[in-house]
Amino acid sequence: MLTRTQTMDVSGLRDLAVRMFDEVRKLSFDGVGVTRESYGRGETAAADFLRDLAQAEGLKVETDRAANLVFSLPEDSGEAPAVWSGSHLDSVPQGGNFDGLAGIVAGLLCLIARKRGGALQGPPLKVIGFRGEESAWFGKAYMGSGSLFGKVSPEDLELKQRNSGLTLAESMRGVGADVEAIRARTPLLDKSRVSAYLELHIEQGPVMVARELPLGVVSGIRGNVRHNRITCIGEAGHSGAVPRWLRHDAMFAVADLIMRLDDHWRALLERGIDLVVTTGVVSTDAAEHSISRIPGLVSLSFEARSKSIDTLEGFYELMRTECKAIGRDRGVRFEFDRRLLSEPATMDARICEVLAQACKERASPYEIIPSGAGHDASLFANAGIPSGMIFIRNRNGSHNPDEAMEIDDFMRGVQVLSDAVDRLA
Amino acid sequence: MLTRTQTMDVSGLRDLAVRMFDEVRKLSFDGVGVTRESYGRGETAAADFLRDLAQAEGLKVETDRAANLVFSLPEDSGEAPAVWSGSHLDSVPQGGNFDGLAGIVAGLLCLIARKRGGALQGPPLKVIGFRGEESAWFGKAYMGSGSLFGKVSPEDLELKQRNSGLTLAESMRGVGADVEAIRARTPLLDKSRVSAYLELHIEQGPVMVARELPLGVVSGIRGNVRHNRITCIGEAGHSGAVPRWLRHDAMFAVADLIMRLDDHWRALLERGIDLVVTTGVVSTDAAEHSISRIPGLVSLSFEARSKSIDTLEGFYELMRTECKAIGRDRGVRFEFDRRLLSEPATMDARICEVLAQACKERASPYEIIPSGAGHDASLFANAGIPSGMIFIRNRNGSHNPDEAMEIDDFMRGVQVLSDAVDRLA
Repeated sequence: MLTRTQTMDVSGLRDLAVRMFDEVRKLSFDGVGVTRESYGRGETAAADFLRDLAQAEGLKVETDRAANLVFSLPEDSGEAPAVWSGSHLDSVPQGGNFDGLAGIVAGLLCLIARKRGGALQGPPLKVIGFRGEESAWFGKAYMGSGSLFGKVSPEDLELKQRNSGLTLAESMRGVGADVEAIRARTPLLDKSRVSAYLELHIEQGPVMVARELPLGVVSGIRGNVRHNRITCIGEAGHSGAVPRWLRHDAMFAVADLIMRLDDHWRALLERGIDLVVTTGVVSTDAAEHSISRIPGLVSLSFEARSKSIDTLEGFYELMRTECKAIGRDRGVRFEFDRRLLSEPATMDARICEVLAQACKERASPYEIIPSGAGHDASLFANAGIPSGMIFIRNRNGSHNPDEAMEIDDFMRGVQVLSDAVDRLA
Repeated sequence: MLTRTQTMDVSGLRDLAVRMFDEVRKLSFDGVGVTRESYGRGETAAADFLRDLAQAEGLKVETDRAANLVFSLPEDSGEAPAVWSGSHLDSVPQGGNFDGLAGIVAGLLCLIARKRGGALQGPPLKVIGFRGEESAWFGKAYMGSGSLFGKVSPEDLELKQRNSGLTLAESMRGVGADVEAIRARTPLLDKSRVSAYLELHIEQGPVMVARELPLGVVSGIRGNVRHNRITCIGEAGHSGAVPRWLRHDAMFAVADLIMRLDDHWRALLERGIDLVVTTGVVSTDAAEHSISRIPGLVSLSFEARSKSIDTLEGFYELMRTECKAIGRDRGVRFEFDRRLLSEPATMDARICEVLAQACKERASPYEIIPSGAGHDASLFANAGIPSGMIFIRNRNGSHNPDEAMEIDDFMRGVQVLSDAVDRLA
């Protein structure tokens, strides 16, 4: 192992980091937060800016067959297996600036420090800026990283963008991806050329702020099971003229379902089981709903997340069982679109140790914590590539305009990332 | 009282009735059901058709200061107090053809029978086609009939149409109503000129079909208390990163509210209390919701209906109390738009007796039943005008395209209406 004095110092790049965040924010500001649509305008604007900046710094910039950006040193012959690091370019609608972008900027700063310093010690480093990580646009996550591992299915490619209505295939083709290779599930990345994957990301929950930890080393990533759209079909009717015993109110049925899920969730938490449950999109049918009409049709999204695949499968079955029971009780029925599963992932023990050691050497408080949110790193880990993640403290959560990462915390994280790259020879 | 042999026979007008329903349906068909927007296109198309038809039959057609249509015999000098009969021109979006229209067609058939028969016995009859009865468009009901009695407030006039965004004032002015008089709450109808108000309407619930009754005599009309929009404000967050104990999920809070209301409703029904409860419009915030985001904002409509004003007030207070309790339990808060109250109404005992007598004489099975839905008749009753209603059996409820009234049942109702007009001298 290299000693601390042999590692690269990134502290001189603080102003560059601030400028990169500011410029990308300006390019994708929507009046409320930032909007960088997967395979759309804001994502491409961020990609173009980062490409130009990297080239101006003398870095090599390539586009892989899934239209992700790959940055490297021009001196890298590509012969030796590389450490990869990166995160995603896109954001949710009206999201925050740091979710995703921080990990790409961090990797780029590591490359720029090496380029400027002329130091080519340690393993080759490749930095990747993924497109299409957020599920908010097509109802599916990890489209960019999943494409590398043959994990985007022909069915996925038919999913439609929430606003434009374009399919994922059309949208990916629009930014230059090789959709036929992705549809054929051709692996687009040679795993043998990747010695490790590291991802820096803001924490998306409140734990690190509460515990006053600038950095976290991620032990594992929750998986999730989802339906983008469950439809509850009851019977519409005049709100004044149908007595309770003759009603088949789809909204009361959905409220019943949510409360039953909440009860089960609470009971499982009391038994120490890791689980979160969310119905992020719920609506009566806008084409026909009115204050004086019993809702005959309600749609909802369903998501459960857990570190345990057994918990995901068990809770999913519970949800299906409750839908059947409510169907009997209330004379409604539930229809389900395709079930989507993202498996939980475990971070590599040796990489966690290297990251923890770097935190200690840089005198940064840290803890080993699990990730509630999903990340591209889970795809690398589940593909058998040793993977690790650094979390940066972040106020106000993510997926909203108020996320607030301190640049000092970020630069600490970049230093730890850089140190870890140097050590993963 | 007139004997049966002296009353007008309307049975020869069956084909005309069918034609009127068919033509108005064609004019307002939307591909699914009928759409006759209050103070909008479909309502005006129906009004124009009925005006032309009535004039061709030699009837007099006037427009009152609230832009309602008023039909009468040209021989009617207007000196004697008249029996008024009518219903509303508008429909909910994708509604059925008979809800409202049946009562106007019924009144017109009575007038046409009198015109064709040259018989001017009995009291003068005026038929009114109200605009703006349905709450689906502006979130308020009885705008046309309410205007006659000074019951439309300046605040009501600022309500916006769900699609066009035009205010009620703008929409009413667009069809020629005297908005300034309405805003000043000037009574537009001289109550001393109205001896009685009769309304024929389809039943909007399933009771008469279940009991095999072609006709019903309405004893009273449920009132209602409403909010068009209650907003639940929680805290948005990443669905994977915020544990249950730190969540302020606005959708779980709203589901909790609906289930608490359902529990109270069931308990009150067991005590024999008349009540229905509906949340017809519920939605997470489309500007920001996503499957992976904890909902921070959910809106819902609230409606309770009862024959008892005390039940309405009591249940309303219960709802507000539960909102406060859920606010404490889940760390959310509820905001309320303006409360809307329509008072319950009682039909006139003598008119009910006249209607029941006519049913018996025409050998039509009937029962005295309450109306769960609200009707323009409640405005007349609460203004002190003796009022009565005839219900026509109707399959599949109303406020949906599947409502199905049999024309034979309708013609029986028209005969009873005509007989009652003759008797209300």
